[in-house]
Amino acid sequence: MFYHIKELQYESKPSCPDPVYAKKLQEVLGGQYGEITVMMQYLMQGFNCRADPKYRDLLLDIGTEEIAHVEMLATLIARLLDNAPVDQQERAAEDPAIEAILGGMNPQHAIVSGLGAMAIDSAGYPWNAKYTIASGNLLADFRANLNAESQGRLQVVRLYEIADDPGVKDTLSFLIARDTAHQNQWKAAIHELETREKDIVVPTTFPRELEKQAVSYDLYNLSRGDASSKGRWAQGPAPDGRGYFQYIQSPQPYGPQPHLIPAPIYIHDTLPMSKM
Amino acid sequence: MFYHIKELQYESKPSCPDPVYAKKLQEVLGGQYGEITVMMQYLMQGFNCRADPKYRDLLLDIGTEEIAHVEMLATLIARLLDNAPVDQQERAAEDPAIEAILGGMNPQHAIVSGLGAMAIDSAGYPWNAKYTIASGNLLADFRANLNAESQGRLQVVRLYEIADDPGVKDTLSFLIARDTAHQNQWKAAIHELETREKDIVVPTTFPRELEKQAVSYDLYNLSRGDASSKGRWAQGPAPDGRGYFQYIQSPQPYGPQPHLIPAPIYIHDTLPMSKM
Amino acid sequence: MFYHIKELQYESKPSCPDPVYAKKLQEVLGGQYGEITVMMQYLMQGFNCRADPKYRDLLLDIGTEEIAHVEMLATLIARLLDNAPVDQQERAAEDPAIEAILGGMNPQHAIVSGLGAMAIDSAGYPWNAKYTIASGNLLADFRANLNAESQGRLQVVRLYEIADDPGVKDTLSFLIARDTAHQNQWKAAIHELETREKDIVVPTTFPRELEKQAVSYDLYNLSRGDASSKGRWAQGPAPDGRGYFQYIQSPQPYGPQPHLIPAPIYIHDTLPMSKM
Amino acid sequence: MFYHIKELQYESKPSCPDPVYAKKLQEVLGGQYGEITVMMQYLMQGFNCRADPKYRDLLLDIGTEEIAHVEMLATLIARLLDNAPVDQQERAAEDPAIEAILGGMNPQHAIVSGLGAMAIDSAGYPWNAKYTIASGNLLADFRANLNAESQGRLQVVRLYEIADDPGVKDTLSFLIARDTAHQNQWKAAIHELETREKDIVVPTTFPRELEKQAVSYDLYNLSRGDASSKGRWAQGPAPDGRGYFQYIQSPQPYGPQPHLIPAPIYIHDTLPMSKM
Amino acid sequence: MFYHIKELQYESKPSCPDPVYAKKLQEVLGGQYGEITVMMQYLMQGFNCRADPKYRDLLLDIGTEEIAHVEMLATLIARLLDNAPVDQQERAAEDPAIEAILGGMNPQHAIVSGLGAMAIDSAGYPWNAKYTIASGNLLADFRANLNAESQGRLQVVRLYEIADDPGVKDTLSFLIARDTAHQNQWKAAIHELETREKDIVVPTTFPRELEKQAVSYDLYNLSRGDASSKGRWAQGPAPDGRGYFQYIQSPQPYGPQPHLIPAPIYIHDTLPMSKM
Amino acid sequence: MFYHIKELQYESKPSCPDPVYAKKLQEVLGGQYGEITVMMQYLMQGFNCRADPKYRDLLLDIGTEEIAHVEMLATLIARLLDNAPVDQQERAAEDPAIEAILGGMNPQHAIVSGLGAMAIDSAGYPWNAKYTIASGNLLADFRANLNAESQGRLQVVRLYEIADDPGVKDTLSFLIARDTAHQNQWKAAIHELETREKDIVVPTTFPRELEKQAVSYDLYNLSRGDASSKGRWAQGPAPDGRGYFQYIQSPQPYGPQPHLIPAPIYIHDTLPMSKM
Repeated sequence: MFYHIKELQYESKPSCPDPVYAKKLQEVLGGQYGEITVMMQYLMQGFNCRADPKYRDLLLDIGTEEIAHVEMLATLIARLLDNAPVDQQERAAEDPAIEAILGGMNPQHAIVSGLGAMAIDSAGYPWNAKYTIASGNLLADFRANLNAESQGRLQVVRLYEIADDPGVKDTLSFLIARDTAHQNQWKAAIHELETREKDIVVPTTFPRELEKQAVSYDLYNLSRGDASSKGRWAQGPAPDGRGYFQYIQSPQPYGPQPHLIPAPIYIHDTLPMSKM
Repeated sequence: MFYHIKELQYESKPSCPDPVYAKKLQEVLGGQYGEITVMMQYLMQGFNCRADPKYRDLLLDIGTEEIAHVEMLATLIARLLDNAPVDQQERAAEDPAIEAILGGMNPQHAIVSGLGAMAIDSAGYPWNAKYTIASGNLLADFRANLNAESQGRLQVVRLYEIADDPGVKDTLSFLIARDTAHQNQWKAAIHELETREKDIVVPTTFPRELEKQAVSYDLYNLSRGDASSKGRWAQGPAPDGRGYFQYIQSPQPYGPQPHLIPAPIYIHDTLPMSKM
Repeated sequence: MFYHIKELQYESKPSCPDPVYAKKLQEVLGGQYGEITVMMQYLMQGFNCRADPKYRDLLLDIGTEEIAHVEMLATLIARLLDNAPVDQQERAAEDPAIEAILGGMNPQHAIVSGLGAMAIDSAGYPWNAKYTIASGNLLADFRANLNAESQGRLQVVRLYEIADDPGVKDTLSFLIARDTAHQNQWKAAIHELETREKDIVVPTTFPRELEKQAVSYDLYNLSRGDASSKGRWAQGPAPDGRGYFQYIQSPQPYGPQPHLIPAPIYIHDTLPMSKM
Repeated sequence: MFYHIKELQYESKPSCPDPVYAKKLQEVLGGQYGEITVMMQYLMQGFNCRADPKYRDLLLDIGTEEIAHVEMLATLIARLLDNAPVDQQERAAEDPAIEAILGGMNPQHAIVSGLGAMAIDSAGYPWNAKYTIASGNLLADFRANLNAESQGRLQVVRLYEIADDPGVKDTLSFLIARDTAHQNQWKAAIHELETREKDIVVPTTFPRELEKQAVSYDLYNLSRGDASSKGRWAQGPAPDGRGYFQYIQSPQPYGPQPHLIPAPIYIHDTLPMSKM
Repeated sequence: MFYHIKELQYESKPSCPDPVYAKKLQEVLGGQYGEITVMMQYLMQGFNCRADPKYRDLLLDIGTEEIAHVEMLATLIARLLDNAPVDQQERAAEDPAIEAILGGMNPQHAIVSGLGAMAIDSAGYPWNAKYTIASGNLLADFRANLNAESQGRLQVVRLYEIADDPGVKDTLSFLIARDTAHQNQWKAAIHELETREKDIVVPTTFPRELEKQAVSYDLYNLSRGDASSKGRWAQGPAPDGRGYFQYIQSPQPYGPQPHLIPAPIYIHDTLPMSKM
Repeated sequence: MFYHIKELQYESKPSCPDPVYAKKLQEVLGGQYGEITVMMQYLMQGFNCRADPKYRDLLLDIGTEEIAHVEMLATLIARLLDNAPVDQQERAAEDPAIEAILGGMNPQHAIVSGLGAMAIDSAGYPWNAKYTIASGNLLADFRANLNAESQGRLQVVRLYEIADDPGVKDTLSFLIARDTAHQNQWKAAIHELETREKDIVVPTTFPRELEKQAVSYDLYNLSRGDASSKGRWAQGPAPDGRGYFQYIQSPQPYGPQPHLIPAPIYIHDTLPMSKM
């Protein structure tokens, strides 16, 4: 169960409105790696958690913080949209600056949300739950979380570079710092799980002898040129400590040509000439 | 540019048809973490690669292999659908076994694809490109790749547990082994990049002094109960070697209550009483 | 900013697992009118609220409660999935009851989420933000909210009728009661706004003389048969108190036939014969 | 069965082309609350109607009108796109006005539709059927309809404010008036159903004693600050006439902490330490 | 502008309910090639038509018929859902037949639509406008229409094969016949346009000398094995009468290896070693 | 199984960057009829092919070529994005030209992909598998392919008209020529199948006597005005050689008015007055 207080986790106040930047900022609110994604991902992982209570608690600690980040970004976007000059009157002057704003902003911020933030990305695509994963396997999911925080911090940093409003930059500097914290935390949690499970290959509980072990460490040179043979991933012991990478210069198929049998007539597929 | 040979990378032949299992197997062909996802993700990362040629080559080596995995799974699914008993004639006998098959299979395998594989998941949802990322930052993207291979291997393993056809199990054991290889390879590549960039926090090129460093290592106890304080993520030096984790027992807001100003009248939002 | 406590708002414990029912219950978690919808809708309306503080507070009161409902339903679904018999071993017995369960459950609950709830509906379609609206006009939005609670309660009631587990029924009876409360609350809030704005037609701030008032109260009989002329909507004073309904027996067009001019040649549309 | 006549319900002719405005106008054709939404929603509700013939007739009267609105808006958009200056030749002059048009229009209007309207919104997102509902419960659905007409009129009004072409404004003034009519009509129909069913809580046919009546009128103060306690929704008799609102100052959980049991090993979730 | 009459274009009455078949039948109502697709595609092509009036009229003739097909299928599905035995009471008997029905039907037909048809396909995926095209080029669009009628008739035929209810079969036999008519009609219209435009390559208005004509008739043998060289498409004059097919046994690249330059530092992509 | 070589099928090198054009070019990479669509469509049709080997080989020949087209367009887009001036520093000068670029480019090219191509269209909508079809019936599918190449070439031609960079135009002229080839090839393949199957109506294997043959050649004049009666599709022998087109001046319904029975009470639909 949740409680809300009205204070923001951190101030979210631009120095002046900028509806064009508001459109861009939507990416880290409602985009593939925006705050709604991490909020929903961590909360669902937490609610579904069947492992040790400390993992559930960690997920719900950070997941609850992310709701506050959604709130901060929504507030920031709403303020960037303050007084967007979209009416006919103001445009009558044919001020090119106003036209530029109108051309660059997302029209839905005027028409649909009435100068409010939306759960969409910077191209106007709505947030959807396929951005998230909660698999029940925490090593897999913490890797998803580390990835989400990495892509997320990268995007916020790029938005920081584009920004020139000091208020916006200040809010983003807070979010960037929190992404630093979360990358470190998921990294630490991953390390703990890898150590505890004594393997790095998810899921660690599947008996290795059931997989086709002959190919478990091969790198197939399927793109001509052997630049990739120079990396650590192509030679030496593999990170899981159970095998050695092999670089296969000229990979060949293990299987035969497939031939599919004709479909029954009631399916009305095209029949081969020989069956007509 | 690409070339195709007719041979499969590995044999994909079930012992007998099973349209209900075909529906489930769609998950790892056209689902969020299926083979189409890794195929498209690695190819796009490779095509867009602006970094060292060896990374581009690695991405295109593995990306090209994944097209072969799409081919293998499509073939396996088509064969599992062989002679699905969907016509009225065969059902006339009211054989409960046939009814069970019909109830459990995806009707689109009969109606839409004519006993062919589709680019959908096990719930019939179509593949879409938001399952993929190519950010230009390879450390971020290799973490995405490691996550994709982790979730992917987990799902194939679960399908292996559900399967009882030895042919299916054989094909899956090959795919599981390749996911082992790929998890090891992305892990090695991540380690190389982290070493080279001398940091683990993506993007490593953003000056740390521009972020709000006071909060870069805090864990906020926002979900009551302090089970999460017991983990490595809550104390000691952070993995990036630049700070120490702090567990904040009673986190407080840094920001004030936000107040949004009323919208201009031409937006037709609800005005506060005081402005009416 | 938000805080979480570990206790559930209300107990969510089925008497025994039922993965088939779990699939159905997903509708009111991640469906069009599920709890995620109202959670996101109320929170976004609250964060964006530019009107009186009491409306913002009301939205955030109820929005915060809905996060707890998401938590309750996720917990309920996870428990309904406990020990789902999906492995080969258990199925070896060819127990028809087990086969029925396997046929009726969503395979993603085994393959993707590892017996956890997902942000999807009962057909496996992922939640997306287009299920929500926050327009900035509270009378419009409260009508959206009343609708959401009406559709939502209807769906929970239908799931109650289908259920036979007393634990499930108990949890649903709580959610149904809360939907009763919320329908009443939005109804009261709508009434307050309609009274304060002295009109029922959203937006009330648009000058009526700018609309084509001659047709503001007409009902056009465009579906042959005049059964619809018998309702209150076809005669007498309209609810807004500004006009009288007119039933137009044989509606005629006000406009002419449209003719579109040919596209410029560089568009490569088909040109009319006369222009070729 | 349907018949078409070539005349438009109302003239839809801009004074001059404006491809940037055409992009914005798409919102009320193919957006969440555009004309396609109400057309499909009313027709499907009508086709599925199992209640009195007069409701079916009303739905099909208005649903049939909405097809004409789709036609009007498609015509208006196509005309706004007349002669859009997208070819290289015309742009050669580097006229900034032309560049502004090109920057602000939806490129798909040139590349995909060849200067035609599309079933998309102002951000280019395609219309989908999840914008609609037909639940079989008319009180719920008429509330959905009232909401759709409220959001729809709000959006058309905002587009009217942005417009400066008298032809466009004339067409929009007709659509605004029709939305006035439809809001009044659904309001009247809702009132009739609420009266007839002697309750306002959908579905009215569910026995109230089966819901957890102790919480049916509570408002939980989950967002700190008691501004919301000042509204009608927090005190006095509820609109359904069956209870009294209660404002709960310090809401507490009714349920315990949930604990989920570990998943079976064949699911390969992370196991708690104690089970490893 | 449109008018509706209550009569169906053709009777749509199953002999008895069958909610499992109703789920499957949804494919041709709300699926990729269902009736909603052709309805929306033809109407939008007609509304946007800038060519000769006879094409506009043809499109609106057939498009208007398709609305009637939507109505027929919605009616058929609603009747197939009559009295679906979804409540707890009826299921109490644990009748396996009832359980089979419940397992095979789409739960949304009970929970969401209240025994009504929905604008979804047989896997529960909602209809969306990307199923349609209206490009302004009628030769292209009539090919889209011929394809839609081909896929559509194929799907209805497959559903006919699965059906055993004589009422259902009767309705489908009508729809199949109409698809026969429409395939013939689009075929005739395509032939007329190809003749009039004196070419078969869309768009026929683009000067051929601007394309890289050296490769305009090549077939590249990129999938090893030369079975494809045996077809008409690999030799002899091409259908457009302007060139001869060439079978290229060993296709080689025309372009060089691409090298992308590093991104500017403010993008925070991974830099090549040499630039670090 | 597939192999990749680093050389491009054709050079893809713009003379200078143009991020605004990059946004538009995305349409033919990741749009409805972009290269990803034909790549996936042909590969899946090939993998699923149950007919003669020469058709499978043809599909995989062309499908494999399309992967190279995806590579070419991705490369072209990445280069058009080179050095996009998105940082604060460069924008400080307030150069209107730079602002125009920033306003017209897709912000995701900076924020999400780091100056890389994405699997999206020109409006930012992600590619999804519903753009493709593989039905098992090759005559249907080759018509889908001919349509895809027609719409695709039309879009590339429109982009060619908009372009002014000679490098871009050169690459597009290659793609246009290949689309010429593919339109001819599918046309030839269609003709071969129609000849072999001795019919043009898909599926040709369904017995005509099972369809309602009385209406198999009618054109219903449902849109007032008889312009459509002047076409070949309204009179004379039909293309399938089995009937004669009939123009029905005043089409009447064949079916009665439908009446749906009330839903069972446990569905909680609105009941008709007479059943209350």
